[in-house]
Amino acid sequence: MTAQTRFTARFGLQHPVMLAPMAGVADATLAAAVSAAGGLGMIGGGYGDRDWLTRQIAGAQGNRVGCGFITWSLAKQPELLDLALESEPAGIMLSFGDPTPFAAKIKGADVPLICQVQTIAQARQALDAEADIIVAQGSEAGGHGASRGTFALTPAVADLVSEQSPQTLVLAAGGVADGRGLAAALMLGADGVLVGTRFYATPESPVAPALKNRVIDSAGDETIRTGVFDLARGYRWPQEFTARAVRNTFTGEWHGNEDALDAARTTQGERYKHAVAEADSSIVAVFAGEDIDLIHEITPVAEILTQMSDDAAALLTSHR
Amino acid sequence: MTAQTRFTARFGLQHPVMLAPMAGVADATLAAAVSAAGGLGMIGGGYGDRDWLTRQIAGAQGNRVGCGFITWSLAKQPELLDLALESEPAGIMLSFGDPTPFAAKIKGADVPLICQVQTIAQARQALDAEADIIVAQGSEAGGHGASRGTFALTPAVADLVSEQSPQTLVLAAGGVADGRGLAAALMLGADGVLVGTRFYATPESPVAPALKNRVIDSAGDETIRTGVFDLARGYRWPQEFTARAVRNTFTGEWHGNEDALDAARTTQGERYKHAVAEADSSIVAVFAGEDIDLIHEITPVAEILTQMSDDAAALLTSHR
Repeated sequence: MTAQTRFTARFGLQHPVMLAPMAGVADATLAAAVSAAGGLGMIGGGYGDRDWLTRQIAGAQGNRVGCGFITWSLAKQPELLDLALESEPAGIMLSFGDPTPFAAKIKGADVPLICQVQTIAQARQALDAEADIIVAQGSEAGGHGASRGTFALTPAVADLVSEQSPQTLVLAAGGVADGRGLAAALMLGADGVLVGTRFYATPESPVAPALKNRVIDSAGDETIRTGVFDLARGYRWPQEFTARAVRNTFTGEWHGNEDALDAARTTQGERYKHAVAEADSSIVAVFAGEDIDLIHEITPVAEILTQMSDDAAALLTSHR
Repeated sequence: MTAQTRFTARFGLQHPVMLAPMAGVADATLAAAVSAAGGLGMIGGGYGDRDWLTRQIAGAQGNRVGCGFITWSLAKQPELLDLALESEPAGIMLSFGDPTPFAAKIKGADVPLICQVQTIAQARQALDAEADIIVAQGSEAGGHGASRGTFALTPAVADLVSEQSPQTLVLAAGGVADGRGLAAALMLGADGVLVGTRFYATPESPVAPALKNRVIDSAGDETIRTGVFDLARGYRWPQEFTARAVRNTFTGEWHGNEDALDAARTTQGERYKHAVAEADSSIVAVFAGEDIDLIHEITPVAEILTQMSDDAAALLTSHR
């Protein structure tokens, strides 16, 4: 028994679960694994490394996967959208910025437009851009996001969609790590879920073992939304978006001292690069959601999907 | 058809819904209305106005209601707990502080101990205090709270309780305004929900009509967690707790300028008091959750409860 929705029907999926296109994490292997196991895999376009993206798209051939972009970053290299569209992706997801400049090209290529939003104002913008799927992302999510919580944002987006564009699908993101989260998302009016952190801690994920283990070993109380890792990496994110990660030595030193970090960005940037090479989780960002309380082991992608879907279906039929 | 859980069974309720003991809002009338309609009404002990509390407890006689305290405030007037216990309340809820100093007296009086928590660390503390109910409150909630979201906090608390004290009940709070929220909370492992903002906008609520209407007219994107209203009112809250309210002229002027507000607290405090007398929602705190997107009209308490419970039950039996 699995959870079936409009999302599974329209995309031919076994499970109403989409992989979050996490920058540097959602590569060909992880995306293909999610699709092969009956979910919808997504490659993370990240900050626009064309060679990396080309390799991932090629590497995922044979599996139907989509591609996600950081919208403000894509605006600096719009040709990457053409690269993705040439692969006939299952969908193009745009997050963190106005989707309008890219929407016509995506829709024109007959590729589903997926817009991730953090507010109702952004959901309206996504509907204006004729999004086929809106992902309502709550602040619980790992990595970049904003302040509104999944629990109240999801039904509010569902209501807006229901009024203005009932054929548009809604996915909930942020805090979904198991069948309880999937079942809850469906109750809140979503057609499925977007999952990041749970897939970060899989054998298929390209993340260094030390960083995966940090997810397994940490608690939700230990995560924080911060901009310090972006400063260290030289990414100039719009101020409205911060990234949730596990607190570590680096956040302890710099969160709340962003001006000092910005002034020290050359040396701290070097320190950060060195720590990445060492997979030193005391310095490196382990982007993870508040749902790490629910993640206790490295679990294969297919097992996660089956369990999530089965558990959700069982929960949804347990109240009669 | 209504949603039945361990919470309804153990407390003899029709609906698994507890009124949030909102300071100055959850009075005898509102609490009695919730209990009379089959939920569990709670009187908000607030900041320790003994005469007010005495009148509310007396006014609710004939209805089985509980009483909630702000723990750090109760510590300054511990005799108020005796006042509440003398009324043989349905439960005593402690929020925002260590429940340990009060737990033995409550348990000794054979009154259910309800602890509201915002983190897993606090949930452990509540279990150590032998809480009968733990309310997992997410940041979406109106009024005071902290940073973790309802969606991932609720199952994490449910897991902790399940391991350490399976007879303890779990309620979800923060963002619950309708049957979707109730159904989702049950899927996440809760036995019921705590609801504040939805009951703020009822005919039974003592709030001035102008403030209720602000809830009806505002959107979730417009709320903010802030400490400025506490500064204006002279309440020295522990820094970890802020209060979610609708943004207005006052937050526009002072949020982010708390030091300046503190310096100007005498004149701004007078201004605030004057605005309260005028029910001026451009200055006064309209404490409200992110779920105000889901609240479109002033609705009687009994109607809210029936609809919430019926809708949840219908949703929970819609997936087969």
